[in-house]
Amino acid sequence: MDRSAEFRKWKAQCLSKADLSRKGSVDEDVVELVQLLNGREQFFTTSSCAGRIILLDQGINGSEVQKQNCCWLLVTHKPCVKDDVIVALKKANGDAILKFEPLVLHVQCRQLQDAQILAVRSTHGLEVPLTHKGKLMVTEEYINFLIKIANQKMEENKKRIERFYNCLQHALEKETISMTSFPKEKIREKNNSSYTHKKKRNPEKACGKYITEENNKELENDDHDDPGISVTIFPEDY
Amino acid sequence: MDRSAEFRKWKAQCLSKADLSRKGSVDEDVVELVQLLNGREQFFTTSSCAGRIILLDQGINGSEVQKQNCCWLLVTHKPCVKDDVIVALKKANGDAILKFEPLVLHVQCRQLQDAQILAVRSTHGLEVPLTHKGKLMVTEEYINFLIKIANQKMEENKKRIERFYNCLQHALEKETISMTSFPKEKIREKNNSSYTHKKKRNPEKACGKYITEENNKELENDDHDDPGISVTIFPEDY
Repeated sequence: MDRSAEFRKWKAQCLSKADLSRKGSVDEDVVELVQLLNGREQFFTTSSCAGRIILLDQGINGSEVQKQNCCWLLVTHKPCVKDDVIVALKKANGDAILKFEPLVLHVQCRQLQDAQILAVRSTHGLEVPLTHKGKLMVTEEYINFLIKIANQKMEENKKRIERFYNCLQHALEKETISMTSFPKEKIREKNNSSYTHKKKRNPEKACGKYITEENNKELENDDHDDPGISVTIFPEDY
Repeated sequence: MDRSAEFRKWKAQCLSKADLSRKGSVDEDVVELVQLLNGREQFFTTSSCAGRIILLDQGINGSEVQKQNCCWLLVTHKPCVKDDVIVALKKANGDAILKFEPLVLHVQCRQLQDAQILAVRSTHGLEVPLTHKGKLMVTEEYINFLIKIANQKMEENKKRIERFYNCLQHALEKETISMTSFPKEKIREKNNSSYTHKKKRNPEKACGKYITEENNKELENDDHDDPGISVTIFPEDY
């Protein structure tokens, strides 16, 4: 079996499996995006979350590193209401934290060039400790203030999903056109400039189908939003 | 000029440039790690931050997305002291936020197989709004509580840097041994299993030199720590 057939088989297997997330289905705000990717032969998604506001209660001995004792007091993919948070916080007996988490999308790509169309956007989150050993550490006024911020982030996240969907759709259409106009090898060669999977080093040199919303921030670590390790591969022998 | 020579030239150029970060030098806690990577011909780093606690003041009209109006009230790469935060907060006249940001490291890799030794660790942060239009929204007791958490995260982050350094060193040593024992093509073939730049799909199938601290979390989006888009490439033709 050749590699393409192997990828198709793997994709079919993965997509036919039951959704093992707690919710058991793809989040509404990300359904179209997931369908757009899964509809293309070179991609499939293995996990996604449209973005959410969560209230976690960590056991008294539970550190951030050991999450086994973590209990969910509230989860919502929609703007949240103060009273729901207040009620949920009453159940906290450890260290409760309110978090906003933006879009997460895990995409399998058939080959390296396909990964070039994907971009990682700024990951503005929110992570606010609210209780300590069950005791509320902030005022209700502060909770109100915080929920407004979390809801604004939710709104902004939704706009970004739409923008990403539109950019991706546009890029895939352009790719289809160029795939029919040029032999495959030509396109591969064309895309063989230096690129990264997290950030484009030189956005102005980017090939047509590369989408990025990040600025060129290297050598300037004053304003980093996506903690972690970013890897750029120098194209040598593929 | 062949690709290897081109990479060497690019590396030399980048490393000879002045450090353009505000600080103007590599953070103490990450110096050894940066030197370890830059000492290997297949890598070089373009940007790094060991981890830090920052207090930002956002202009009243400044949203999270537009950061132009952002002003830094406090930055530290060491555990921070409550009084410093209290004093700094008095200068806030917009919406001040306390953040903890873990290690960030941007690494250029000569070729795809070199990128396999790199892992992205869990990115536990902290992002807590403290003032609104200059008005403090929390108590001094809460600030104290928050600083303890931020300092614990700083300590944990430091341990992780050390652990990452040790794992990387070990992996690079193993690689050197295998590079001298086997022809290069053999190694490339050996590493030609399915892998990702952010997470290993099947850690148990990982080749010897792959380091990961992540668990296999796909299809289970209940506990995501690294928001963004993760790309896995199916090895087809490189």
